[in-house]
Amino acid sequence: MKIAQIQMAVTADKQANIRRAVILIREACRQNIDMAVLPEMFCCPYDNSCFDTYSESADGQAQQALAALAKEERIYLVGGSVPEKADGKLYNTSYVYDRQGRQIARHRKAHLFDIDVAGGQRFFESDVLSPGNAVTVFETEFGLMGLCICFDFRFEELARLMALQGTKGIFVPAAFNMTTGPAHWELLFRQRAVDNQLFTVGVSPARDEKASYVAYGHSIVCDPWGMVLHQCGAGEEIVVTELPLERIGTVRRQLPILSARRTDLYQITGQK
Amino acid sequence: MKIAQIQMAVTADKQANIRRAVILIREACRQNIDMAVLPEMFCCPYDNSCFDTYSESADGQAQQALAALAKEERIYLVGGSVPEKADGKLYNTSYVYDRQGRQIARHRKAHLFDIDVAGGQRFFESDVLSPGNAVTVFETEFGLMGLCICFDFRFEELARLMALQGTKGIFVPAAFNMTTGPAHWELLFRQRAVDNQLFTVGVSPARDEKASYVAYGHSIVCDPWGMVLHQCGAGEEIVVTELPLERIGTVRRQLPILSARRTDLYQITGQK
Repeated sequence: MKIAQIQMAVTADKQANIRRAVILIREACRQNIDMAVLPEMFCCPYDNSCFDTYSESADGQAQQALAALAKEERIYLVGGSVPEKADGKLYNTSYVYDRQGRQIARHRKAHLFDIDVAGGQRFFESDVLSPGNAVTVFETEFGLMGLCICFDFRFEELARLMALQGTKGIFVPAAFNMTTGPAHWELLFRQRAVDNQLFTVGVSPARDEKASYVAYGHSIVCDPWGMVLHQCGAGEEIVVTELPLERIGTVRRQLPILSARRTDLYQITGQK
Repeated sequence: MKIAQIQMAVTADKQANIRRAVILIREACRQNIDMAVLPEMFCCPYDNSCFDTYSESADGQAQQALAALAKEERIYLVGGSVPEKADGKLYNTSYVYDRQGRQIARHRKAHLFDIDVAGGQRFFESDVLSPGNAVTVFETEFGLMGLCICFDFRFEELARLMALQGTKGIFVPAAFNMTTGPAHWELLFRQRAVDNQLFTVGVSPARDEKASYVAYGHSIVCDPWGMVLHQCGAGEEIVVTELPLERIGTVRRQLPILSARRTDLYQITGQK
């Protein structure tokens, strides 16, 4: 399974962002990829004041472009996220398309990012956005995959529930910042991979020092042993990585974590 | 709260190990510590063939020595672990004593370490040991603390259940090896601290290259932001660290993880 992480530069021009995403994904497709992954808010500045203006409803412009592209290039496409408007509410939503361009998953960010680090970042998504209410997985020819958005991934229960359903990888469009990124980004993706013995894939926008919210970049892919297969720098970058899926079985046989859980001592349950 | 991590060299002589532990803890007490923490199997080689021979029952030699020491020095003492014999079974057991020398906790390792890394370590604790059946916490004048042993800490549910009970630190007598140590030790202690927004403290024996099981060493203490406050090297070392407990509240206010959990989407429950 060959994936492309599209760490793209996001501008204030929605149409230009969509065009840029399409160009970069087409470029990645020359390397015969199976799946492309875009960053969180790939066509909208990551700013509460922008989400409404840049939002779209169920069959909006970004989604039409991505669905068509997935079909044309015959790839799976994890479409980062967009501000979605539905029932008068705004969501931070990720859509996934299959090789026929069909939408096979929709995840609305379930944990909104409200943070207030002394001397660092202050950001309250919940001022503007509503939370989703689901643990989201999707089926591919390579097996089941998990999907969540940025801050969601901080909550270990979500990843664990995905792993217990049998997912082989967790895909996370995300945008950590210059406070949380250096402190926690690599650590998080590595340990979730080790704890759940699967691949973790984080895709961030490229860093824009002039933006009101400065994304860390550093899109990352980790294997089930917690090894970093690739980590980007700060700038725009397309990375194509072959995921050695057989590592899942090897690691799980060598170090029994998922299979040695003491479900008589603790249980985790999820609501649909 | 000032703690001492006792990364001691463990020999094949049980009595000598106990004497050495007492000497090292007394030395740490000169720095006015509140608590000392010993490593896993601090008075017994970490080898399946030794556990029965070195084992002791409820009021054995090691426990008497540690209880007396805790009382004399007026400290809390997390007594690493010893092979405990009870009802004809062997356990890997950690006892905790308070400032009056009273045993206030007993944790039997609940996840036995069975590992088979290709080209690396092979070790099957469950060939000889029986597992415990509890999540273990204990009360101190500084608040509630959690206790588990080595491989237990790999299972995120255990740490989460402790955190949800209100523990401020998790103490982990442990002995990672030269395969899992470099790969996962620091990562694990840092991310458990970040996920649960509390202090994590791992104490290993010093490395003995000639032992059948070579411990990694690297005793570590992390704060609730995932910062490593101290990490030892491989050799015998006593480290005294003041835990800035107020960091727990600061970090939890700045980055709401425990408080932002979506308990309508997932729940974790523990059996007593």
